Amino acid sequence: MADNKKMVEAITSRDEDFAKWYTDIVKKAELVDYSGVKGCMVIRPYGYAIWENIQRDLDRRFKETGHENVYMPMFIPESLLQKEKDHVEGFAPECAWVTVGGSEKLTERLCVRPTSETLFCEHYAKIINTYRDLPKLYNQWCSVVRWEKTTRPFLRTSEFLWQEGHTMHETQEEAEAETLQMLRVYEDFYRETLAIPAVVGRKTEKEKFAGAEATYTIEPMMHNGVALQGGTTHYFGTGFAESFGITYQGRDNKLHFPHQTSWGVSTRMIGAIIMVHGDDDGLILPPRVAPVQVAIVPIAMHKAGVLDKAQEVADSLKKQFRVKLDASDNSPGWKFSQYEMQGVPLRLELGPKDIENNQCVLVRRDTREKIFVSLDNLEAEITKLLDVIHDAMYNRALENMKAKTFEARTYDEFLTTAKETPGFIKAMWCGCTECEEKIKEETGGVKSRCIPFEEENLSDVCVCCGKPAKHMVYWGKQY
Amino acid sequence: MADNKKMVEAITSRDEDFAKWYTDIVKKAELVDYSGVKGCMVIRPYGYAIWENIQRDLDRRFKETGHENVYMPMFIPESLLQKEKDHVEGFAPECAWVTVGGSEKLTERLCVRPTSETLFCEHYAKIINTYRDLPKLYNQWCSVVRWEKTTRPFLRTSEFLWQEGHTMHETQEEAEAETLQMLRVYEDFYRETLAIPAVVGRKTEKEKFAGAEATYTIEPMMHNGVALQGGTTHYFGTGFAESFGITYQGRDNKLHFPHQTSWGVSTRMIGAIIMVHGDDDGLILPPRVAPVQVAIVPIAMHKAGVLDKAQEVADSLKKQFRVKLDASDNSPGWKFSQYEMQGVPLRLELGPKDIENNQCVLVRRDTREKIFVSLDNLEAEITKLLDVIHDAMYNRALENMKAKTFEARTYDEFLTTAKETPGFIKAMWCGCTECEEKIKEETGGVKSRCIPFEEENLSDVCVCCGKPAKHMVYWGKQY
Repeated sequence: MADNKKMVEAITSRDEDFAKWYTDIVKKAELVDYSGVKGCMVIRPYGYAIWENIQRDLDRRFKETGHENVYMPMFIPESLLQKEKDHVEGFAPECAWVTVGGSEKLTERLCVRPTSETLFCEHYAKIINTYRDLPKLYNQWCSVVRWEKTTRPFLRTSEFLWQEGHTMHETQEEAEAETLQMLRVYEDFYRETLAIPAVVGRKTEKEKFAGAEATYTIEPMMHNGVALQGGTTHYFGTGFAESFGITYQGRDNKLHFPHQTSWGVSTRMIGAIIMVHGDDDGLILPPRVAPVQVAIVPIAMHKAGVLDKAQEVADSLKKQFRVKLDASDNSPGWKFSQYEMQGVPLRLELGPKDIENNQCVLVRRDTREKIFVSLDNLEAEITKLLDVIHDAMYNRALENMKAKTFEARTYDEFLTTAKETPGFIKAMWCGCTECEEKIKEETGGVKSRCIPFEEENLSDVCVCCGKPAKHMVYWGKQY
Repeated sequence: MADNKKMVEAITSRDEDFAKWYTDIVKKAELVDYSGVKGCMVIRPYGYAIWENIQRDLDRRFKETGHENVYMPMFIPESLLQKEKDHVEGFAPECAWVTVGGSEKLTERLCVRPTSETLFCEHYAKIINTYRDLPKLYNQWCSVVRWEKTTRPFLRTSEFLWQEGHTMHETQEEAEAETLQMLRVYEDFYRETLAIPAVVGRKTEKEKFAGAEATYTIEPMMHNGVALQGGTTHYFGTGFAESFGITYQGRDNKLHFPHQTSWGVSTRMIGAIIMVHGDDDGLILPPRVAPVQVAIVPIAMHKAGVLDKAQEVADSLKKQFRVKLDASDNSPGWKFSQYEMQGVPLRLELGPKDIENNQCVLVRRDTREKIFVSLDNLEAEITKLLDVIHDAMYNRALENMKAKTFEARTYDEFLTTAKETPGFIKAMWCGCTECEEKIKEETGGVKSRCIPFEEENLSDVCVCCGKPAKHMVYWGKQY
């Protein structure tokens, strides 16, 4: 150890300083590095491997629901971005602009895509002619740029990786069904793959996407009670189609505008994984996206046969799991801390005594539970344990979300809850933007998260203005 | 058919106008669409699916050789690009520059990455400290931008998709071995997956990459005898490391500069697939990257049982192959032409008579051969045939390359061959740039492709200047 500079350094306590705890983890678990361009991050191998696992899983879900991947240019001419009024107003202030190409000043500025509705519409205008060309169910994996003033790795960066679905449909019903279907795909993915529960519902007028008729959202709650907009799906109606002259000849032989949707999730999900599951010792990764599912740590490695046996176990497990055998000359204790910091779901310890007894020790990252397992039964036991860990992580997160979800029936109660107990507040709302703005102002940032699909009737009047209530809304601060 | 506007239009003959034939195919096989930004293309689902298959295969090869994926920012500050003199000279003239972010003029211009050596170096400077941190074997999948004046889909576009490997090593030997290993990975991939043979070797000083000590290249020949630079690997020595201050503490406890490589292939490979394999009826796709490997065309679809049986066959084949059942109301003849145009390796015809005989007809795209196959034996037969098609495609391409590879022992012979018979010319070379420039000038664009690893000795003197020859060189025009 003397010549090894690497040490597993302690990280800030989660309860002491959540923001610093987060930053410590992303750096020390080697998920990202900062780059020389403000707000842009380097995603390191361990962080990128999480993204690859996310991509593979989501991409399968998109293809199973009939979507095809495409790639659009990364540049949008300014005139194209301006074709849809609300959209350009929403995005122009945060665009990065290319003004010089080669050594020449461009005659028209090009914006680096902040999102690609306009590019998809330009293409759809050329390839959609009749109802036979519909639906078009396209998705794109790419990076996008939004010039942010305050940035934080994964949560808010000037460049981020994401997927953006863009679809065109004959009817409003079909397009709305798509919007809701993709929200369900996200919800299933969060639950089944990331072990993250969430509230889902519709955004208010104030919070919806620039140019959309309706925006739906999935809102997981972080450990500290702060919400994260975890993914959105948008129904656009025919607004973009009208602006871009996209028409199709219908079954009635008349020309119609198709109905459009878009939907996206991003590398921000990695931020959610960290903040929902992590603890004071570092990351706790959901087994289904963990780059390493089982870290094998040989004990008394110098003893005859230990390393050979560890290699044999690793080779056998590799067929089924993502496995890392650490045969470096770091101490077992260092390795334990390292893989805890990196959130590896299972640690497998194997020493001379274990080998003698034809067994090994499995240690769960989430509970630290130690389990002695026969080597004859290892694959089955690991398969089972990874599922058990997933479920336990989901349930812990769900308990946290439940414990930090409050109700407010009066405005005083709302303000007190907002001030004293971070989390979601369920409260009735009249439907007007003024109340949303007043609440945000007077609570230092509590915004409407969404109108859930299943509303409760907590009272008949708006918690803010006292006028008749239209909806129950989840409120909360956000990243 | 009356109300269906879609028709399989004829394409330009390959021998008549190769360039127009190429453009017809990329448009009519629905691989790409042009976009509103000059030189940027929309990669449509069928084209993108080829890229996804290429990516999956290459990514596996990269990981098997120990590489990890990362993601670097898409922007490079001008000062960072300028740190390596040769590099900036090579790339600055073709950069796209972001000068405005949000609504503010940036204090420093940002270039949209044309390649990411500088970003990797900036990161490596922070994470490489001792020999224990080496090697670093990183790869990135992303899009890059090079402002091109004349563009052609896949072959030369202002934005393209690619992978770029960037590695750091303790010693020159290790780095050079990596450079050659990755060239072999490319060569294997071209042969085993794309069914494309190629010449491989080292670039001359004149043709090597900006900032590299040595550049290696894989050069497949298109059907018309023109070469395509199909992929390159570079050995950088310690030049970048010195410019970026990357050092490591060696086994001797002293500070050293690590040795660096980079290597990349791009969506240009799709251009190679088209131009190596295609014919007058459209694409011929190598089975291992074809988005659809078997297109099922039911015959007399209205007859009872035909569609059910076709669906049953499709469902069963889907477990093993990429299959499309076309149950649209287009005529079988239209479908035949369509899947020929799209280069689907095998067409499966199934009609009432076939069903009666428990058989179907398989038609090879590459030879048009019809094969009657029992439905009991279908999977095995398709598996075999896809391999047979792959091998046949490779051999045809190899025959073409051999037939269009010439030797020149005198300059007259060289000029005549260059003028009259497009292809590779093997000829001796003295090693000086002046002769390369003279040849390029006097032949209207014939350049050195590479110095092959296995040189022949055609004579002792340079074909151009008559001075003593240092190497045998493959010469040819390129895309």
